[in-house]
Amino acid sequence: MLEKEAGLAAGQDDAREDVYHRDNKRERAGQPSSLSNSNSTTADPALTRAKNCSDNNVRGVGRAPYVIRVLIALKLKGIEYEFVEEVVGKKSELLLKSNPVHKKIPVLLHHGKPICESLVIVQYIDEVWSSGAPVILPVDPYTRAVHRFWAQFVDDKLPPGIRTLRGMGGDGDKDQAVEQLSAALQLLEEAFVKLSQGKNYFGGDSVGYLDVALVSHVGWVKAAEKIAGVSILDKAKFPNLVAWAHRLCAHPAVADAIPHADKFVEFSLKYGSFTKPTINSGAK
Amino acid sequence: MLEKEAGLAAGQDDAREDVYHRDNKRERAGQPSSLSNSNSTTADPALTRAKNCSDNNVRGVGRAPYVIRVLIALKLKGIEYEFVEEVVGKKSELLLKSNPVHKKIPVLLHHGKPICESLVIVQYIDEVWSSGAPVILPVDPYTRAVHRFWAQFVDDKLPPGIRTLRGMGGDGDKDQAVEQLSAALQLLEEAFVKLSQGKNYFGGDSVGYLDVALVSHVGWVKAAEKIAGVSILDKAKFPNLVAWAHRLCAHPAVADAIPHADKFVEFSLKYGSFTKPTINSGAK
Repeated sequence: MLEKEAGLAAGQDDAREDVYHRDNKRERAGQPSSLSNSNSTTADPALTRAKNCSDNNVRGVGRAPYVIRVLIALKLKGIEYEFVEEVVGKKSELLLKSNPVHKKIPVLLHHGKPICESLVIVQYIDEVWSSGAPVILPVDPYTRAVHRFWAQFVDDKLPPGIRTLRGMGGDGDKDQAVEQLSAALQLLEEAFVKLSQGKNYFGGDSVGYLDVALVSHVGWVKAAEKIAGVSILDKAKFPNLVAWAHRLCAHPAVADAIPHADKFVEFSLKYGSFTKPTINSGAK
Repeated sequence: MLEKEAGLAAGQDDAREDVYHRDNKRERAGQPSSLSNSNSTTADPALTRAKNCSDNNVRGVGRAPYVIRVLIALKLKGIEYEFVEEVVGKKSELLLKSNPVHKKIPVLLHHGKPICESLVIVQYIDEVWSSGAPVILPVDPYTRAVHRFWAQFVDDKLPPGIRTLRGMGGDGDKDQAVEQLSAALQLLEEAFVKLSQGKNYFGGDSVGYLDVALVSHVGWVKAAEKIAGVSILDKAKFPNLVAWAHRLCAHPAVADAIPHADKFVEFSLKYGSFTKPTINSGAK
């Protein structure tokens, strides 16, 4: 099934677009976001060869979870890249040319060749930069299949509820969205216990494919809590998942790619939330 | 995004289920479908090691495209397997236990360990039986990414139109469904020309991942034509795709897994088509 990067297309409907802006260190420093990114995770000498490939161009909107996961994958691998921010509401010529089928972000241009669909891109990154770089997909085929299964689950179950809580429409009301998200997080809490086996990540000792897929939604889950005045990612209900999110968001390859929840709220208000945020003390 | 094997769950709604029955040689001979399958593609001595793994159990309903692709992948690899037909409308205990999250077919049980979601299963099969067996995923990472992209496209774009033409509901009417399906097939026609490079399959000389993903829907496209009295997979419009489908459906690993379109029509009438089939001379 096509990954639902629905609403992430640049240019379809400005007021409703489910795109996020990026707030990384470069942007905070006032630098244009199209500058080449030399991130802090590239110190490993073993990655020198991979780093030398600078012809990597990511087109997207920095708050989109599907863009975030591509950036995290590149940072995990220690790959230099240029990030080009698409203007919300205006599809660039290069985007239209690079992804003529869906006309959506993210697109990775590697030596000028476009790769589309975020989970396809993450797998591509893992396969192309396999030598001397950390692996993202688990090596064991069964564990890999389990990660792929849950990554699909994440993209199926989380975005609809988040959109509803942001006031972006959807099938159900706020209570139903909270219920659906909680049910999904409960399954992910249990999956984490099984997959991590007492270690830090879904991938065990290292950040894996499912870690990348899920953490890219965390910022918007937190923003949805603030916007709708509800509690979802509750430490009492999902202690392992909350601890995982806290830990992973502090990881050097992730910290720079995921903005603070307030930035998502700002963006949501600007580009399509129909409700005013209610900063609820119960919201995380 | 979670692969939409929606409506393929055994047991949710008998009258509406979008499941297909299998009509392979074994069934035609009146044998129970749970017998071990020794298919005709396993003659290659190089596959002896792989063949010896007989602890492969596929649970599904034989006319489901998502089941068909798992069987094709196993046959391509020359892997012996046991196919257990799920009873439409009754989820087996083993299915519920094997896929507790989605409770859907297909499930591959390999040495008792369940793998769910058809495209995840196909990749698992390709990775586990990699030695001495034909490859399914292209070896080149970029080509692999392109196949993954189009496989997602196939599962996103074809099932909704097919369901509408079967009278199973959907967003649009018959004309819209034909239009949507034709638009998708036009893109796939163009993709075939690019990817096959004048050879037989999307995978070039050999059957690849996208071949497996797409051909599993061909039977239902033809059935939808008959049920709705329309022409979709039209040789004049899509000459390369029609020739590809004809060629691939005759491939030994595929011929046994895909029933004749009439069998899909029969199933559709029994389990949920709201319209009577109109056998249109224009339908292929």
